Amino acid sequence: MLDIDAVRAQFPILSRQVNGKPLTYLDNGASAQKPQIVLDTIQRAYGEEYSNVHRGLHTLSTISTENYEAVRGTVARFLGAPSEEQIVFTTGTTEAMNLISYGWAAPRLEAGDEIVLSVMEHHANIIPWHFLRERQGVKLVWVEPDVNGDLDPQAVLEAVTDRTKMIALTQLSNVLGTVVDVKTICHAARERGITTVIDGSQAAVHMPVDVADIGCDFYAITGHKLYGPSGSGAVFIRPERLAEMRPFMGGGDMIREVHRDTVTWNDPPMKFEAGTPGIVQTIGMGAALEWMMDLGMDQIAGHERILRDYAREQLEGLNWLNVQGRSEDKAAIFSFTLDGAAHAHDISTVLDKKGVAVRAGHHCAQPLMEHLGVTATCRASFGVYNTKQEVDVLVDALELCHDLFA
Amino acid sequence: MLDIDAVRAQFPILSRQVNGKPLTYLDNGASAQKPQIVLDTIQRAYGEEYSNVHRGLHTLSTISTENYEAVRGTVARFLGAPSEEQIVFTTGTTEAMNLISYGWAAPRLEAGDEIVLSVMEHHANIIPWHFLRERQGVKLVWVEPDVNGDLDPQAVLEAVTDRTKMIALTQLSNVLGTVVDVKTICHAARERGITTVIDGSQAAVHMPVDVADIGCDFYAITGHKLYGPSGSGAVFIRPERLAEMRPFMGGGDMIREVHRDTVTWNDPPMKFEAGTPGIVQTIGMGAALEWMMDLGMDQIAGHERILRDYAREQLEGLNWLNVQGRSEDKAAIFSFTLDGAAHAHDISTVLDKKGVAVRAGHHCAQPLMEHLGVTATCRASFGVYNTKQEVDVLVDALELCHDLFA
Repeated sequence: MLDIDAVRAQFPILSRQVNGKPLTYLDNGASAQKPQIVLDTIQRAYGEEYSNVHRGLHTLSTISTENYEAVRGTVARFLGAPSEEQIVFTTGTTEAMNLISYGWAAPRLEAGDEIVLSVMEHHANIIPWHFLRERQGVKLVWVEPDVNGDLDPQAVLEAVTDRTKMIALTQLSNVLGTVVDVKTICHAARERGITTVIDGSQAAVHMPVDVADIGCDFYAITGHKLYGPSGSGAVFIRPERLAEMRPFMGGGDMIREVHRDTVTWNDPPMKFEAGTPGIVQTIGMGAALEWMMDLGMDQIAGHERILRDYAREQLEGLNWLNVQGRSEDKAAIFSFTLDGAAHAHDISTVLDKKGVAVRAGHHCAQPLMEHLGVTATCRASFGVYNTKQEVDVLVDALELCHDLFA
Repeated sequence: MLDIDAVRAQFPILSRQVNGKPLTYLDNGASAQKPQIVLDTIQRAYGEEYSNVHRGLHTLSTISTENYEAVRGTVARFLGAPSEEQIVFTTGTTEAMNLISYGWAAPRLEAGDEIVLSVMEHHANIIPWHFLRERQGVKLVWVEPDVNGDLDPQAVLEAVTDRTKMIALTQLSNVLGTVVDVKTICHAARERGITTVIDGSQAAVHMPVDVADIGCDFYAITGHKLYGPSGSGAVFIRPERLAEMRPFMGGGDMIREVHRDTVTWNDPPMKFEAGTPGIVQTIGMGAALEWMMDLGMDQIAGHERILRDYAREQLEGLNWLNVQGRSEDKAAIFSFTLDGAAHAHDISTVLDKKGVAVRAGHHCAQPLMEHLGVTATCRASFGVYNTKQEVDVLVDALELCHDLFA
């Protein structure tokens, strides 16, 4: 069992107040807070060891490069990737999906080719494919979850046709909390020669991930949701796909030789990392992932299951609250609306008066909102530092909302 | 006159030692060190005020969004841009140039259209145009500097033909230190309907910049060279060009409405900022730019002129040292080779033993290396915190190199 008081003590921001109340931070789905080890790592990287990376031969550049490149191995371990050479650093999942769209899919997919995706996807895993639809006539084929928010792997596979070139799915819905059985889908897709892109932005935060076991071609993670710095991320890419990709962004570091009329590329993963990278953010992401692995992903998942069960039970007691997503094994993410006229934004504003931070809106998942028949929800999304007491604070604040708006 | 001791005292890393010697950091062209105000801003942003930005209604999200969006105004002031709506945040100049290449040029330039650029460009201002050459038959037209490293504006304008659609130039060579008269070029180009892209990565660090006066269409800056965090940057874009651009990266925030078969875009600048941005890096860049403006860009330029004059005089006394770039009004950037067999990397290694950090290599400017007839140089690039005493340390260390390798 994790000692959650000890975990919480590592997050300076959690001791602050909001509107005179202790902060109850339940907006982890949007971004997580940072432990002291990440803050200290950033300070040391800038204050004692900073320099640009690669090709510099002086001491600071060597230190900075070693610290930066070491994170590739950390990410590989975190994701169960066979080699750190299969890890490309990004600024987050949005850049990863655009790298895949521009670097792998655009030169390869033709008009009429199909991409299968679910209506639960985040815009980061939708818009890069909309580009292919708009610009080159690729067809988007949508799969819907059932009434509980579960996504049947067979429904996904039944959407596959001879024109399907790619399946793009989240492993964990940022709105419903649904965990998708991507392993079954990826293995079946691989037998049919279909490329699989998995959005791990949420899943990697809440459960152990093993990309070799999943069998996907691409798996993207976002540092700032993983208790790391903003502007950090990484994507695992299967070597066959890496070899097929053309460069996305051009600049320093990703080239071997540049002449006036020719240019040759560096080897992957550098081929896909143009210019001075997010040096300190990446080093900070490494510290965050090491911190998570030290806690243990099973331990984190176990604690969040306790939170989920308790929150589910408490929220089910509020018969004027409509929780979206009732998947049995969902993560501790609860999107809801209130009976009556209260808009999600109003609910969020009232909760904030009680120090409770939740997100209100479409959560970058408009096709899912459309599917659910709502324009917006409030979302309480839990992280490793949250407690059952904070569930009680949320419930009390929701009851106040009900009294105000009913 | 700046009080340089007081400036230096604000940079914690400058009090460290390297190989038992005080650090003499002359690798500012690659990346600058960070003042305490930037470190403190980052700590506060993560430790006290962190949340994702935009659309969040809770207190932390509001604070974070206000701090983040305020930087747009800071950048506009720093660059003399008429409006903060003309500022798009990036991760640095590399992303800016790719945004321009994919978002403005790719859908607009046809086979046989021409881009004029100089051989002094950094790879960030070369490779995105090579993509257009490789993928759609655009022609790159190269202009050379004279023997002193000066770039004649007339030589650039004479390279223009009826097929010229774009001129892409650095305002300050990262290797030679040459300052280019981009104003003359941009005004002439504008009369002929040619789009101008200015790489301000180096210039904005060393001299006052006024994009309205320059008259360019695009002007890109990089935060980590401006005493700000890695992974930060911005690009000024003239409103007519902004209106012509299609989105580059797709994801959250840059959309208005997403459906299964249609998508509509947000207004600029948001249209070009997909996904969770580099929140804390951008806030940190804002602190760095405010810090520079508080010192005064004229004051910074004045101090660096003193350093340049002193360094030029001292280095000219070393008759076995070949300095590349003798432009009269150059910045305090000195690239050099030594007579004899010593490779730039060996020189750099010896200097490092004396605590002197310089860069050795092609400086992401291979076409310039080819033009100069060298494969690599050492580069000592000065910043606001450097001193005449550090020039002396460099000269002493170079004399040691000469003794070792001559």
